[in-house]
Amino acid sequence: MTVRRQPGAAHSITIRTSYPNTVGMLGQITTNISAAGGDIGAIDIVSAGRNSMVRDITINARDDSHAETLKEAVSSVEGVTIVNVSDQVFLRHLGGKIEMQSKTPIKTRNDMSLIYTPGVARVSKAIHDHPESVWNLTSKGNTVAIVTDGSAVLGLGDIGPAAALPVMEGKAQLLKELVGVDAWPIVLDTHNTAKIVDTIKLLSHGFGAINLEDISAPRCFEIERRLHKELSIPVFHDDQHGTAIVVLAALYNAVKVVDKKLPDLKVVLAGVGAAGVATTKLLIKAGVKNIVGVDRKGILDRQKNYGNNKVWKKYSEITNPDNISGHIKEAMKGADVFIGLSGPGVLRLEEVSLMNRKPIIFAMANPDPEIWPEEVEGVVEVMATGRSDYPNQVNNALCFPGMFRGILDARAQKVTDGMKMAAAFAISKRVPESHLNNEYIMPSIFDTGMADQVAKDVKAAAIKSGVALKN
Amino acid sequence: MTVRRQPGAAHSITIRTSYPNTVGMLGQITTNISAAGGDIGAIDIVSAGRNSMVRDITINARDDSHAETLKEAVSSVEGVTIVNVSDQVFLRHLGGKIEMQSKTPIKTRNDMSLIYTPGVARVSKAIHDHPESVWNLTSKGNTVAIVTDGSAVLGLGDIGPAAALPVMEGKAQLLKELVGVDAWPIVLDTHNTAKIVDTIKLLSHGFGAINLEDISAPRCFEIERRLHKELSIPVFHDDQHGTAIVVLAALYNAVKVVDKKLPDLKVVLAGVGAAGVATTKLLIKAGVKNIVGVDRKGILDRQKNYGNNKVWKKYSEITNPDNISGHIKEAMKGADVFIGLSGPGVLRLEEVSLMNRKPIIFAMANPDPEIWPEEVEGVVEVMATGRSDYPNQVNNALCFPGMFRGILDARAQKVTDGMKMAAAFAISKRVPESHLNNEYIMPSIFDTGMADQVAKDVKAAAIKSGVALKN
Repeated sequence: MTVRRQPGAAHSITIRTSYPNTVGMLGQITTNISAAGGDIGAIDIVSAGRNSMVRDITINARDDSHAETLKEAVSSVEGVTIVNVSDQVFLRHLGGKIEMQSKTPIKTRNDMSLIYTPGVARVSKAIHDHPESVWNLTSKGNTVAIVTDGSAVLGLGDIGPAAALPVMEGKAQLLKELVGVDAWPIVLDTHNTAKIVDTIKLLSHGFGAINLEDISAPRCFEIERRLHKELSIPVFHDDQHGTAIVVLAALYNAVKVVDKKLPDLKVVLAGVGAAGVATTKLLIKAGVKNIVGVDRKGILDRQKNYGNNKVWKKYSEITNPDNISGHIKEAMKGADVFIGLSGPGVLRLEEVSLMNRKPIIFAMANPDPEIWPEEVEGVVEVMATGRSDYPNQVNNALCFPGMFRGILDARAQKVTDGMKMAAAFAISKRVPESHLNNEYIMPSIFDTGMADQVAKDVKAAAIKSGVALKN
Repeated sequence: MTVRRQPGAAHSITIRTSYPNTVGMLGQITTNISAAGGDIGAIDIVSAGRNSMVRDITINARDDSHAETLKEAVSSVEGVTIVNVSDQVFLRHLGGKIEMQSKTPIKTRNDMSLIYTPGVARVSKAIHDHPESVWNLTSKGNTVAIVTDGSAVLGLGDIGPAAALPVMEGKAQLLKELVGVDAWPIVLDTHNTAKIVDTIKLLSHGFGAINLEDISAPRCFEIERRLHKELSIPVFHDDQHGTAIVVLAALYNAVKVVDKKLPDLKVVLAGVGAAGVATTKLLIKAGVKNIVGVDRKGILDRQKNYGNNKVWKKYSEITNPDNISGHIKEAMKGADVFIGLSGPGVLRLEEVSLMNRKPIIFAMANPDPEIWPEEVEGVVEVMATGRSDYPNQVNNALCFPGMFRGILDARAQKVTDGMKMAAAFAISKRVPESHLNNEYIMPSIFDTGMADQVAKDVKAAAIKSGVALKN
């Protein structure tokens, strides 16, 4: 089954049209756009003359080729000229999305004496004499480095440090807009694990925490493990733990909807990469006992020879209690939950039909899920994806802003499992039990107060874990 | 001669006083402050009751111990209680001086689709397909990394990366406020030349230019040389070239005042470190023929054995055409110009008296110059310092904002000598010839339009030098 993607803002174009100012023209244009499947947004008058009219028509398309179709639909109306076409996504990226801001204006020599020479020397000396004061007298305490090597960016893979920048900038924007954290992207031109670790250690004094981002497995495990051990500021690899946390949050609520308990579940997890491993570990911490991992070579059991892949070998040892073998079909027999962190089309309806009663599916491959919600309608009890255009969006953006706010507020030295569990629980409880249903298991990213709740609970957990330097 | 330093904003305290609301109290307080040498600024009423009065009195002190004296002067007035004392410099540093800002708000799911997933994937893909577009579609094109290892910070020396942060933040503020450049501090926890070079190369994709800062000699030479060669974005070590440029700018105007020409000058330069070497090289480029360098071991001549110090050896080969020897006294005989980039008290009046007619002195050691202006009043024709409380302040802040604006506007790949000369000339010509006199050879840092002029001329020079990718 091929599911036609919905038009969305990610492919939004604005077509500037010029046409004779006669009755019915706009109607013809909009009719053509709708017939071509375009989702019309704002229509603005640019100039209206006695004889001619210029309008900007903003239309959501499904993808780039659909945008082309829509342009043709507009220009095919007799008398209409397309003046130009602008792409909203690219417009929003022109010149970049973030900037540095001075907290105070510098207008006079006095300002300069206070913030720069000679006054600043007294502050530098104070930090040198009392190293802890760097947290109060500089921006460090509210600042996060978002570090990537560009090796596993979204669904695009290894596109390199420069092409990763827009994603890191977007993340920085969310951190500021949602929780007031100042983050700056650091994109590294190397895939060398040791070099990445060293570089982050060398530059860590300027930051209060490190957000690792879009670094491919298995290097990301080693990088995080070493930094967790060797750095005095906390490190959080969002692709691993952010995903694990939002999946656990979704699972907390999904099992309530189907009236099951975590220890009784059989969970099949497809895609044993960075996110899959971290999710599995966190689910085990939370009380899930039976998780079966599936990857390209089938079920991760204890018979297979994993060669150099120590991650998969280790995984097979801590999961799959019945040591079952085979492919996804065998795994899905009697499963209560499917968690997809793999790729499009990995799961088929016939496999879903083998699941236990009231099945739960989190098909989180992005943008195209392991199976489309339309395919399993009526078969599955709770269906979630990573997408914003279906119910139950399970998205890291629900977690990382509050997580970093909490980390910085506690001046946490490490990120502990307790903090991750607290974040998951905080997210899940933003959906009031009375509202909980199979189409509403996750709060909105724009739920005011959610990030604050996550931050508060993460901070409390940091204090409880003994890693907080601030109460 | 010991010169008493002037009170200034760098030691500005605000004393909250509480006293009986009776006639004459404020007069007694202010009289005491003035008698103790305090420079009174704002006096604000915090609360005024029938019987008692609370006022904030802001006073510029000379230094920390003078601030203590002033507190005692206030509390010694009968009936006065000091409620608290706040320090303006530290107040301005609380929580840091810079922040990250999102250029657009993120309020809706549509915003998120445009700036983050899924829309951002199209932008990342575009950059991957067309690497040059990173300059337009991200913040790179307007962003500078201010990189230090904290080894030579102001006059404080090797205070380390954390203590260097306030200076780097101040620099970032000036870049934003004066020329709209977005800079972020990167403070590195190593003195290893190769590691600093490697780290900067690894993280360079996110930035449009690198500002090296406060890295001690001779490591700074090697670091800059390698980065200049190996990076595709420009590198500018402000301590070297920023200083060289402002000194050349000052010299251009000083020689006009005394009616001399650069090729005819004998210049003595004290302090052959990072700034001294760069200044010497730029002065030679500009046409100065006779420069004599002096450092701790005396005049750099071609007889001495410099051991491992290749920098001094090289320096002695390109300067001192008459190969004179001895100490500063020998150097100063018949000199037209003294340039001090060394330390307080290096130059004495008896040595100044050996100079040629109409002597020029730039005593730029900070905060205490090689010789104080008061000491040479009437003896010297043009006197300049690095300080803001005397005429003719020669300060890097006159150069680096415009330099970086010009670099980014031209998308320069390197910083050339032509660009440095253009910057020096742009600064010097901001003082109109008709206004030029021995107390006015340098424009003000707050001269509106100066940084723009420097930027414009630097950009033009970059285009002329063939290093600009943008016209």
